[in-house]
Amino acid sequence: MTIKVGVVGGTGYTGVELLRLLAIHDEVEVVAVTSRGESGNPVSSLFPSLRGFLDIDFCDPESTDLSVCDVVFYATPNGIAMQQVPELIAKGVRVIDLAADFRIKDIPTWEKWYGMEHACPELVEKAVYGLCEINREQIKDAKLIANPGCYPTSVQLPLIPLLKKGYISSENIIADCKSGVSGAGRGAVVSSLMSEVNESFKAYGVSGHRHLPEIEQGLSEAANAEVQMVFTPHLVPMNRGILSTIYVDLKDTDAQTIQTYLEDFYKDEEFVDILPFGSLPETRSVKGANMCRIALHQPQGRNKLVIVSVIDNLVKGAAGQAIQNMNIMFGLKDDAGLQMPPLLP
Amino acid sequence: MTIKVGVVGGTGYTGVELLRLLAIHDEVEVVAVTSRGESGNPVSSLFPSLRGFLDIDFCDPESTDLSVCDVVFYATPNGIAMQQVPELIAKGVRVIDLAADFRIKDIPTWEKWYGMEHACPELVEKAVYGLCEINREQIKDAKLIANPGCYPTSVQLPLIPLLKKGYISSENIIADCKSGVSGAGRGAVVSSLMSEVNESFKAYGVSGHRHLPEIEQGLSEAANAEVQMVFTPHLVPMNRGILSTIYVDLKDTDAQTIQTYLEDFYKDEEFVDILPFGSLPETRSVKGANMCRIALHQPQGRNKLVIVSVIDNLVKGAAGQAIQNMNIMFGLKDDAGLQMPPLLP
Amino acid sequence: MTIKVGVVGGTGYTGVELLRLLAIHDEVEVVAVTSRGESGNPVSSLFPSLRGFLDIDFCDPESTDLSVCDVVFYATPNGIAMQQVPELIAKGVRVIDLAADFRIKDIPTWEKWYGMEHACPELVEKAVYGLCEINREQIKDAKLIANPGCYPTSVQLPLIPLLKKGYISSENIIADCKSGVSGAGRGAVVSSLMSEVNESFKAYGVSGHRHLPEIEQGLSEAANAEVQMVFTPHLVPMNRGILSTIYVDLKDTDAQTIQTYLEDFYKDEEFVDILPFGSLPETRSVKGANMCRIALHQPQGRNKLVIVSVIDNLVKGAAGQAIQNMNIMFGLKDDAGLQMPPLLP
Amino acid sequence: MTIKVGVVGGTGYTGVELLRLLAIHDEVEVVAVTSRGESGNPVSSLFPSLRGFLDIDFCDPESTDLSVCDVVFYATPNGIAMQQVPELIAKGVRVIDLAADFRIKDIPTWEKWYGMEHACPELVEKAVYGLCEINREQIKDAKLIANPGCYPTSVQLPLIPLLKKGYISSENIIADCKSGVSGAGRGAVVSSLMSEVNESFKAYGVSGHRHLPEIEQGLSEAANAEVQMVFTPHLVPMNRGILSTIYVDLKDTDAQTIQTYLEDFYKDEEFVDILPFGSLPETRSVKGANMCRIALHQPQGRNKLVIVSVIDNLVKGAAGQAIQNMNIMFGLKDDAGLQMPPLLP
Repeated sequence: MTIKVGVVGGTGYTGVELLRLLAIHDEVEVVAVTSRGESGNPVSSLFPSLRGFLDIDFCDPESTDLSVCDVVFYATPNGIAMQQVPELIAKGVRVIDLAADFRIKDIPTWEKWYGMEHACPELVEKAVYGLCEINREQIKDAKLIANPGCYPTSVQLPLIPLLKKGYISSENIIADCKSGVSGAGRGAVVSSLMSEVNESFKAYGVSGHRHLPEIEQGLSEAANAEVQMVFTPHLVPMNRGILSTIYVDLKDTDAQTIQTYLEDFYKDEEFVDILPFGSLPETRSVKGANMCRIALHQPQGRNKLVIVSVIDNLVKGAAGQAIQNMNIMFGLKDDAGLQMPPLLP
Repeated sequence: MTIKVGVVGGTGYTGVELLRLLAIHDEVEVVAVTSRGESGNPVSSLFPSLRGFLDIDFCDPESTDLSVCDVVFYATPNGIAMQQVPELIAKGVRVIDLAADFRIKDIPTWEKWYGMEHACPELVEKAVYGLCEINREQIKDAKLIANPGCYPTSVQLPLIPLLKKGYISSENIIADCKSGVSGAGRGAVVSSLMSEVNESFKAYGVSGHRHLPEIEQGLSEAANAEVQMVFTPHLVPMNRGILSTIYVDLKDTDAQTIQTYLEDFYKDEEFVDILPFGSLPETRSVKGANMCRIALHQPQGRNKLVIVSVIDNLVKGAAGQAIQNMNIMFGLKDDAGLQMPPLLP
Repeated sequence: MTIKVGVVGGTGYTGVELLRLLAIHDEVEVVAVTSRGESGNPVSSLFPSLRGFLDIDFCDPESTDLSVCDVVFYATPNGIAMQQVPELIAKGVRVIDLAADFRIKDIPTWEKWYGMEHACPELVEKAVYGLCEINREQIKDAKLIANPGCYPTSVQLPLIPLLKKGYISSENIIADCKSGVSGAGRGAVVSSLMSEVNESFKAYGVSGHRHLPEIEQGLSEAANAEVQMVFTPHLVPMNRGILSTIYVDLKDTDAQTIQTYLEDFYKDEEFVDILPFGSLPETRSVKGANMCRIALHQPQGRNKLVIVSVIDNLVKGAAGQAIQNMNIMFGLKDDAGLQMPPLLP
Repeated sequence: MTIKVGVVGGTGYTGVELLRLLAIHDEVEVVAVTSRGESGNPVSSLFPSLRGFLDIDFCDPESTDLSVCDVVFYATPNGIAMQQVPELIAKGVRVIDLAADFRIKDIPTWEKWYGMEHACPELVEKAVYGLCEINREQIKDAKLIANPGCYPTSVQLPLIPLLKKGYISSENIIADCKSGVSGAGRGAVVSSLMSEVNESFKAYGVSGHRHLPEIEQGLSEAANAEVQMVFTPHLVPMNRGILSTIYVDLKDTDAQTIQTYLEDFYKDEEFVDILPFGSLPETRSVKGANMCRIALHQPQGRNKLVIVSVIDNLVKGAAGQAIQNMNIMFGLKDDAGLQMPPLLP
């Protein structure tokens, strides 16, 4: 099989990561990579890392007919995909949006957090939230995938099974999350400069971050009750990687039972790795790879469960999960094109 | 006034930071810096950064008479100071221990966490815990200072006033702390190698870290009740800096009242800076400086107060606070020799 | 004495470094820091590192009368100072330009490399090139200082004495220079983003960089002959520091004689440190300090002398040297306000 | 075909990189990974990045029969392979040594630079220097490969063709090389600590580095005359990557002719990429990939050619080239198992 793939917005970090992974996917042919600013230039002139691996020019979004594609990935800023996707869907093209346009089911909530009016609320309803291991069945038949946010992926993968099962309290949940700077994108802003980020550490969005409603939506559905949690993102002076330290209150279930349950829940999943109890995952153990590694701790035997979860924000947190979604949609094995081990050191 | 200062263990990061600060302290003469391994070598041959600033050789600990000093700093591994301090104290020399030998009042607790028998429990009782802004009065007359740990400094400075006042709950306290790698010391271990630490992020000591009992001791005293909390240290790929994100349950007091109270509590303190409500302090805002900056948040107006606190682990978290303690002990202004602004970027 | 100081362009890295150093200079009062964009805001709101150290607001350049200053520092982009300086000079204010407007004596050369017409060629002639240790006498009486570039400082300090003395060939000189990213400034450009710079290394400006004519001007004057050299700048994934590796052909003089000569040449200079022959200076040995450390090597006893020179690009390569120039101009000791040891680690 | 592979010394960075690449090589089965210290432990317990990708335990070197392997890689410190290789070769096992034991043909030179007596000089003669693109024909039939050093790979790939052709002078060659810290290995030494390396830059081995005789050997053979050059290694605060800036004197040939010649010389080579004249390669453009990218410059049109060459020191500079050698030895395509694009950012 050869899947004809289009990429809209191939000049950011999510875009180049998609291209890196698509370039070596045996069942994929990249037929179009659009960019207004780079139109006509070889992709490898902007990203010399791809020289010899992907031989295609950026094309103009206006004059490119994406309806020849089997699937189109949107690696654009929020608010772009929703303008264009209805037409593509109508033409039978499948779409995977790596931005946030279709992640939040409640339109007023989305509009409040993203500060704009939604262009196609009717499609939000039909979109499938592409958290692969949780929603695999719906993904298979989906026309439109809302690829999950990076932080939400790292937080929901461990919590959803436990909330569904009722093993942990739905109150008092705290997710203290830390991300490398590529999550802030390739935009030219002072706050992302090397001299601003390097050799420093900070929290940001403490009072409110767009991934909060996305996580709360997923957790609430799992808990079958409204979940309100605290989510604090931090910026780590490194390029890639997210580590989430999650604090939850144990209910009646002991930590070992939870460990066993989680191992069992994910035992057939290649891209979720439940580490032995008490392990200390590092973000580098997933660098460049489509993988979420999770470890549980019960400090001092007290009543708090501490969950540590790591992903590469650009892979399992973005481009890798997007390709995993594509694989599921097209009946391929999850790991097609995604078998590379992490890069260490 | 000239204070004659001795430094035991001047070859680690805490040691060299002490020497950097002492070198420009107008009222200090460094008369001895001991090191078994480097004895006879100029300090500046090991630390060329000090060439032209500190012209002294390392001396042998065996043959050096530290009783000529007015004060001796121990920048040694845990367990060294307690062997030597009783003799110095007996001779009238004041001692500031930057290690942990005298921090924990309960001897069995100390022995359990530090894995050795304490050599002079009788001195532990007399030692003053040198958290300057909290214990200034006792420090003035102290013969022996237990200089606080880096994490404990960053966590206790914001929490102690609030627990004393009863503004926050003493239950459910979580301190999610992140430190640069200099906190791990200058020992040659694989886990501190550049290739191991750089471009990665991890939690460590999740199940139990030695700073837990130290923090709990301080918080329990402030709350006048036993405080059990969760403390999770993390390693940030940078040299210096600690940021602690602290989650506490609000009681009846609103966040603005707490903000005002904290500003007032520290209004005369040069080295504790309460930022405007909702600020986002970065570790680089204190790099190289003896300063703790603290900000409060109340995410989404819910019942959790989030406190962000930053220090330089080597300065306010170690050598700077040690010198601040010395200043207080010798009747100098707190900021003698400590007036340098942080280095940015 | 209190020198009234104005700073034009205080929002970049050179600007904030100037402010850090001026804040603790006993003989300085900062009376104005201009910024069009930040006018009215406290300096410490842009740079929280200065909270508690510098209590002044940015002021509007249009409405600020800088003629009340004794000296004005320009920490602006190239091309700004030359528009404003003539008026200030006419009013008797001394000026230190940290940009390049007055560094190149040959106007057509300047105009070619900087791509604009010079606004006041007549002042270029009168400006003194502020390489302190070389031009101290002229600096004392200067009204206008052209503060040297960062790379040129690191290259000229070791080479000028040797070329003057005729100890090395004026042909075949190669300066392979490496700089931290703060040298690229605080402008919001993609090429300075953390994700672009971090974990990578590159050469830039290989075919031609503006510091080439500046260095060649200085070396030619020293050699009393036209010097053509190769200068290759590189970008190091770190914030601060320049290391220049300089390759020169030995003439009849042996390396040890050169070592002795250089030690003697700089023996009274506090801020140029000739290390023992064969030393390996690191940029961190000068981090945050006004210092140039230099070491000589003669690999395999062959005919090439290899000179390694390190500075902090923001201090001896910019703000520190600027203040050293001010000190000399106002009859202070060179090291007034500049006595801080480097920050390590 | 399935090649049975043994790895001796799998606990260093070269070792884990070999394992990462071998794990996804379709024609390879890893049958043994020896380590004295880790014997009996899963490889993935030391390197969690390999969990799910390589399911094998470290085995004891004493009790492991490597003669069942088709090829054995030595990723050991210098001086180990030469003790063991004769026996393996005698048994018909092919060997690829990633250390330096067989790189230098002149035994006294080797013994001088490596400070030990060579254990099997007779094998040195038979060993093939595995610079794949230069020595492909000899590699095909080799029993023993001396895998080139990292710096030598980056310097020789551009220079050997030019010296052979006589386009550049064999005198006055300078290689100013910069490497990430993984090149220093995974040994626990202070000089490789994060706090020592990070945020600093230094030269090392200026007076003499072991890769000097290796490079000179290769260049001398190419020039058919003794080449003496200057080689200066530097340490970059990053994990991976080498950039070599090479200065050579042009002879009668103009730079464009050299550009065309080099493009032609390597036109069929997948892993040597001659960039357009005047390009500025970054080390990240080869991160994690078996690739050398090379660019030529002629600054100011003068008589020096400046060559910039980048590789990943662990891949084309070590493990990747080793596998490329294996592929050639076993009649596979060069790129078997080596097709991954570089990781950016």
